[in-house]
Amino acid sequence: MCRIAAYSGPARPLEDIIVKPSHSLLTQSQHAEEAKLAVNGDGFGVSWYRRDDPIPGVYRDVMPAWSDSNLTSLSRMVSSHLFIAHVRASTAGATSRENCHPFVYKNWSFCHNGQVPHIDRVRRRLEAALPDELYHTRRGTTDSELIFLTLLRHGLTQNVDSAWAKTLEDFQPQQDEKPVRMTCVFSDGVSLFAMRYASDGKCPTLYTSAWDSGTLIASEPLSGDAKVWSSVPTDRVIKFGSNEFVEA
Amino acid sequence: MCRIAAYSGPARPLEDIIVKPSHSLLTQSQHAEEAKLAVNGDGFGVSWYRRDDPIPGVYRDVMPAWSDSNLTSLSRMVSSHLFIAHVRASTAGATSRENCHPFVYKNWSFCHNGQVPHIDRVRRRLEAALPDELYHTRRGTTDSELIFLTLLRHGLTQNVDSAWAKTLEDFQPQQDEKPVRMTCVFSDGVSLFAMRYASDGKCPTLYTSAWDSGTLIASEPLSGDAKVWSSVPTDRVIKFGSNEFVEA
Amino acid sequence: MCRIAAYSGPARPLEDIIVKPSHSLLTQSQHAEEAKLAVNGDGFGVSWYRRDDPIPGVYRDVMPAWSDSNLTSLSRMVSSHLFIAHVRASTAGATSRENCHPFVYKNWSFCHNGQVPHIDRVRRRLEAALPDELYHTRRGTTDSELIFLTLLRHGLTQNVDSAWAKTLEDFQPQQDEKPVRMTCVFSDGVSLFAMRYASDGKCPTLYTSAWDSGTLIASEPLSGDAKVWSSVPTDRVIKFGSNEFVEA
Amino acid sequence: MCRIAAYSGPARPLEDIIVKPSHSLLTQSQHAEEAKLAVNGDGFGVSWYRRDDPIPGVYRDVMPAWSDSNLTSLSRMVSSHLFIAHVRASTAGATSRENCHPFVYKNWSFCHNGQVPHIDRVRRRLEAALPDELYHTRRGTTDSELIFLTLLRHGLTQNVDSAWAKTLEDFQPQQDEKPVRMTCVFSDGVSLFAMRYASDGKCPTLYTSAWDSGTLIASEPLSGDAKVWSSVPTDRVIKFGSNEFVEA
Repeated sequence: MCRIAAYSGPARPLEDIIVKPSHSLLTQSQHAEEAKLAVNGDGFGVSWYRRDDPIPGVYRDVMPAWSDSNLTSLSRMVSSHLFIAHVRASTAGATSRENCHPFVYKNWSFCHNGQVPHIDRVRRRLEAALPDELYHTRRGTTDSELIFLTLLRHGLTQNVDSAWAKTLEDFQPQQDEKPVRMTCVFSDGVSLFAMRYASDGKCPTLYTSAWDSGTLIASEPLSGDAKVWSSVPTDRVIKFGSNEFVEA
Repeated sequence: MCRIAAYSGPARPLEDIIVKPSHSLLTQSQHAEEAKLAVNGDGFGVSWYRRDDPIPGVYRDVMPAWSDSNLTSLSRMVSSHLFIAHVRASTAGATSRENCHPFVYKNWSFCHNGQVPHIDRVRRRLEAALPDELYHTRRGTTDSELIFLTLLRHGLTQNVDSAWAKTLEDFQPQQDEKPVRMTCVFSDGVSLFAMRYASDGKCPTLYTSAWDSGTLIASEPLSGDAKVWSSVPTDRVIKFGSNEFVEA
Repeated sequence: MCRIAAYSGPARPLEDIIVKPSHSLLTQSQHAEEAKLAVNGDGFGVSWYRRDDPIPGVYRDVMPAWSDSNLTSLSRMVSSHLFIAHVRASTAGATSRENCHPFVYKNWSFCHNGQVPHIDRVRRRLEAALPDELYHTRRGTTDSELIFLTLLRHGLTQNVDSAWAKTLEDFQPQQDEKPVRMTCVFSDGVSLFAMRYASDGKCPTLYTSAWDSGTLIASEPLSGDAKVWSSVPTDRVIKFGSNEFVEA
Repeated sequence: MCRIAAYSGPARPLEDIIVKPSHSLLTQSQHAEEAKLAVNGDGFGVSWYRRDDPIPGVYRDVMPAWSDSNLTSLSRMVSSHLFIAHVRASTAGATSRENCHPFVYKNWSFCHNGQVPHIDRVRRRLEAALPDELYHTRRGTTDSELIFLTLLRHGLTQNVDSAWAKTLEDFQPQQDEKPVRMTCVFSDGVSLFAMRYASDGKCPTLYTSAWDSGTLIASEPLSGDAKVWSSVPTDRVIKFGSNEFVEA
C-alpha cells in the first residue's frame, strides 16, 4: 500500500504538496494514517509536466522520500501545473528504481496504490497479450506496471473508460482469491485522472480538494491551505481539471 | 533513536539475530515498539569479527535494512562469534554511509542509540581536543561518531571505565539543555560491552539474554529461542562474555 | 562488455582475486585492457559458496565496484572454495541491482560477458517458452538473465552440454544481424564452468591459471601469484576443478 | 581530477551542456581526454539558479552520471540562466553525496577540480580557523569543501579577489610537498566565476566559449554549437557574464 498526491492547476512548486503541508506526502511516507502500512519507505517518484513539452519529467529513487535531500531541493525549485507524486510501501518485490512509480509511457504517467494478490496467476497471460511495443517497455516486476501496460493495450490513449473496463476484467480475482484493490492516479499531460476500484468494495482511500483554482488529489488529506476534502467516487474514472488555466 | 542487536558466543549465522527471530532487528527496523520512532529506515550496519583477525568486517548502507537483499544473503552466509548490528533512525543529519553505525577504529566497533541535543555547542571543542590521528579518521557528521572518538581519546583501548567517565563529563548538558541519553554497544573483538546512561535517568532500552552458551543484547527482546530477557543495568559499563568458547 | 573473475580450490579470501592482485577485478573495473569498454562501472556482483550449504551467497550493487567500501571489507572477511565475481559495463539497459550479475537460481549462479544484439527480436519468444517457475523468477531486463533462464529451461541442471547446444541455437543471429558473443562463467556449487562462444568466432577473452591446488578464471590475467595464464578453449563447455579439496 | 561544465546566459535546458553536445559532460564522465583520470564515475552534481530565488537547487548523487536516468530527465526538464555541473573522480575519500560537488552555502555554489596533496597537514588548522557558522556547515571530508569554506571565511561574499588571495596562501604547499592545483568554478547566483591556480603552474584545464549571448565554461570543449573555445586565464579570478539577459 502506497501513498499518492497529485495536483492540477496554476503552476505551483512541487513542494507545496510534497513537502510543506503539515500532513504532506513526505509526512505520509513516515506516518500514514489511513493505510495498512504506516511506513512508505521503499522508494518514491514524481512525474511532472511542462506546458511546452508533452513528455513528463520523472525523478524516482529507492531511498525513503523523507531522507532524500535531492527531492527537497527539486521540489522547491521546480514548479508545474500538473504533477503526480508517489511514495512506495512494497508488499512484495524488490526495492529498485524500475519498480518505483510513476511509470511513464510517452505523455502518460501512472501511479497505483493497492494489491493484486493473484498477480502470479495472471501475469504470464497478460504479458503475453501485450503488443510488441508495450512488451519491450517493461522495466520492473510490479503488478502496478502491468496494470498500466494493460490499460495501454486496451486503448487508454483513445478511450480511458473502456480501457479501464477491459483492464478490470483482466484483473478480476477468481472466487477463492483475495480481493483486487486499486486506487490509481494518472495523467496524459492535459488532465488528471483517478480510478478507485476494489472487487470487495474496499478501495484504498483517495481524497480531493479545490485549491485556489486548482485541484488536489491525495491518499490522505494534506492539511494545508486546502480546507475541505471529499472522498473521490469509486468504480468509475474521474477526470479532474481540464487545464484551462493561465500560468500563475 | 535507533535499534541495536549484538551477540557474543559460539559462532552463529548473523541471520539468527538480524533476520530470523519474530521480533528480529529487521522487524524492529519497521516496527520498533519501545522507541520514540517506530521506523528505523535511515540506513543500517553490521560489524562482525573472525577469530583469526582482530579487524572486524563492516557492511553499511543507506537503504532501509528491510529492503536490502544483500543484507539477507550476507546474514545467512556469514557466521561469527561476535557481532553488532544497528538500524538507524536519524533525528538530524544526512542519510549517508559515513553516518551509519557501527563506527570502526582498528579492532574496535561502536554503535549508539540516543541523543545529544546540545551537540552543536560541544562539537567544536571536542573535535579540537582529538589527537591528530583520531581527528583524521572522522568520516561523517553524527554525534555518535564523536562520542566514539572521544572515548578513544580518553583511553578506551586501555581502560574502558575511565574512558567512559571522562567522556560522559565531556557530553554533560548545561542546566537549561535537554537531557543527554546514550545506550551504546561496542566491542574490542574480544568482549562485548554496553553502556546505558541518561542525564535524566531515562536511558534508551537495552535487554540481554543468555542463548545456549552465548549472550544476546538487543534494544528490544528478539522473541526468538532466547526466552528470558532482562534489562541491562545503567550508569556503568557492562562487559559480556569473555569469548572463552570453542567454535560451534 | 563486462569483466569476470572466478575461483575454485582450497578456500581463499575473496580479496585474493577481487582486490589484491595488481590487475585485480577491481582494477579491471577501472582499466580493462582487453575489453571494448575500458570502464566497467555499472554495478558489480559476487556469488560465493559454503561447503555446507548448496545455495550461494550473493552481494550485488549498482555503484562502481571500485568505490564500494562494503565490497572491500566483505572480500577480506569472507573466504570461499568457490566464487564468481563480475563487474558490469552496460551497453544498454538500466543500472539496477536486478540487472547485476551473478544471477542465481537455487544452487546455480551465472555470469555473462558479451552481446546479443538481436535480443529484442528473440526476447518475447524465449520468455514465452519458459516454464512458469522460471518465468516468475525473472527480475531484470538483461539479455544475460534470459540466457541463464533459457539454459535452465533446456536442462542445465541435468546436462550442461546439451543445455548449451540448445540455448546457442535459440540465440543464433539471422543472416543480417550482428554476431552473438558470449563468454559465460557459472557454477552449480560443485564445479566451475565456462563457455566461450561467438557466432563470428570473436569470443570475449577468458583466461585460466592454476593457483596452488586451485583454479582461477578471469577475463584478463590477474597478474598475481599465478604466473602462467592460458586462454580458455572456445565453442564447448569447460569444467574446472571438481572440488576434491580439503579446507585450507 | 574531475570535470566541470557551467553556463551563464539566456535560460537553457541543462541538457544543452550536460547531455546533448557530442563531448558533453556526460561523455566526459566516461571518456575525459585532458584529465589524469579518464573516468569520472564517483558521483556527480549540478547546482542551478532561478531568477526569483537566490538559493540554488542542487542535485547530487553517488552513481556515475552516465547511468543516472534521473539526471537525464531533470536536465531535459529544467532550464536555467546559470548553472554549474560536476562529475567526480575521487583520488581519495569516500564516494558519498556529502562529498559530491557543487557545495552550496546560501546563494553560493562551488566546484573544484584539482588536488591538495598535503591536505592532512593543513586540514586541522584550517578547520579550526573557521567561524562557528561555517564550521557547522561541513558535511563531508573533501579538500574541495574545505577550500570553499576557507574562501567564505576570507570574505568571498564581500571581495572575491582578496578571499582567493588569502585562501591560496592558506593552501600553499611546503618546499618538499607536491604541488597544489585547483581549477574552481563558482557562482553567487549573479555571476559565474572561475579561478585556475597551480603552485607548479600546471593548472587543470578550463575552456570558455561564447554561445549565442551566453557563456560556456568547461574542463574540455563540449564540441557542440559553440565553435571557438579559448583557455581560461590562470592565476586570477575571472568573472563571466553579468546576467544582464532577458529570459529567452
